[in-house]
Amino acid sequence: MQRYFINQNADINQRFCINDEGDIHHISNVMRLQIDDYIIITFADHYVYKCKIVNITSSKVTVTLEERINIDTELPQNITICSGLIKADKYEWMLQKATELGASAFIAVGMKRSVVKLTANKIAKKIERWQKIIKEAAEQSYRLVIPNINYQASLNEVFQQVAAYDYILIAYEDAAKQGEVSNFKKVIKQFQHNDRILVIFGPEGGLAEEELALFNEHAYNVGLGPRILRAETAPLYVLSAISYEKDLLS
Amino acid sequence: MQRYFINQNADINQRFCINDEGDIHHISNVMRLQIDDYIIITFADHYVYKCKIVNITSSKVTVTLEERINIDTELPQNITICSGLIKADKYEWMLQKATELGASAFIAVGMKRSVVKLTANKIAKKIERWQKIIKEAAEQSYRLVIPNINYQASLNEVFQQVAAYDYILIAYEDAAKQGEVSNFKKVIKQFQHNDRILVIFGPEGGLAEEELALFNEHAYNVGLGPRILRAETAPLYVLSAISYEKDLLS
Repeated sequence: MQRYFINQNADINQRFCINDEGDIHHISNVMRLQIDDYIIITFADHYVYKCKIVNITSSKVTVTLEERINIDTELPQNITICSGLIKADKYEWMLQKATELGASAFIAVGMKRSVVKLTANKIAKKIERWQKIIKEAAEQSYRLVIPNINYQASLNEVFQQVAAYDYILIAYEDAAKQGEVSNFKKVIKQFQHNDRILVIFGPEGGLAEEELALFNEHAYNVGLGPRILRAETAPLYVLSAISYEKDLLS
Repeated sequence: MQRYFINQNADINQRFCINDEGDIHHISNVMRLQIDDYIIITFADHYVYKCKIVNITSSKVTVTLEERINIDTELPQNITICSGLIKADKYEWMLQKATELGASAFIAVGMKRSVVKLTANKIAKKIERWQKIIKEAAEQSYRLVIPNINYQASLNEVFQQVAAYDYILIAYEDAAKQGEVSNFKKVIKQFQHNDRILVIFGPEGGLAEEELALFNEHAYNVGLGPRILRAETAPLYVLSAISYEKDLLS
């Protein structure tokens, strides 16, 4: 059944409206739903309801809440994926997959070795495009939140926010070559419910020395196994590993 | 440093030749390497050497072995990723990422709910294309083996091979909806070194009832966390989780 988001808290006694053009188009023209058909709606308070369509116009789809669905699809930790800018198609794939895999937020950073640069006038359009990709992926994978994405011109800006995180991990290529195989697992096992984790990934060229040094004792340098992972793959390894460790029971 | 494969066993006292056209082109024209430059070569016996180029022609690159490199980049288990046919670009992307993440082999299967079908005359070309993608990904991620790929017309053919595997896992969508959260972790923890594992993934439409029933008590039905993962994402979750469990130390 199709899922949509409504940015209000659920109330079983009220009618609600979907106003988002893209969603209305999807409901009317793609799924061809009609009055009395059902859709699933996730509300701002993370409640999820099976809803009945009671009216459809070109600007609004009105629903009543019929039955609560009890499923928690969020990771127990908030994971922010902070990546150096990489080629557009690879980055968009990664956003989609990382959203399926439970990322809470994304920060795209113009890192020293990024081959791709973003000029100021292009940022807004990119953010809009990325946010759309993330929203679609969040809906399809039954996420309770739509991850946010923003852009920072360098890691210095990200560093200003260190206090906002409980843990900062840097995934760097040399760890694989040097055989570092324990930091990642040790630190993941320490994560508590609702901890805010920032994970930093370099662009295709890797992180520069000064970027690694910037976070210093604020961050753990972690190896992600003995294989070299591409910039767009490493975040998926991290999210899968955290889900395996925290979502699944032994 | 660039890596290539030579399908012979290493011998520090011998010269070796790279004959593969694609590799020669890459060495001469892409990397613009010359006599006395170094490349890394992985041999059939999994030995890895830093090698010096002693001659380059249009049909052959000759090297001597200079220094052994001691790194094991393979997963401790042999993981075969068995997927229903899905859209071409998604499948190719998955092959590349799954190779980075350590898959040993791939089986592409025409499953009941596959939207994509492969006619007999197209299979050979597809296999060739897929094998090329896998080879490039294996080289870039420092794999010691190039995973193999083959095609089967249905899961019945795959079922004939059950005895070849120590464990068979079926990753199916309903596990997420039903809240199954422990089979995957429990069975992974049992894996021994060199065990052969087959993991079966459905196409976009999921596995059909009769396909699930086919393997019956030969297979474990495993949930991969509470989020719905797309057909091309689920194999990456599995490989990342196995690497996390088996490659990294607590």
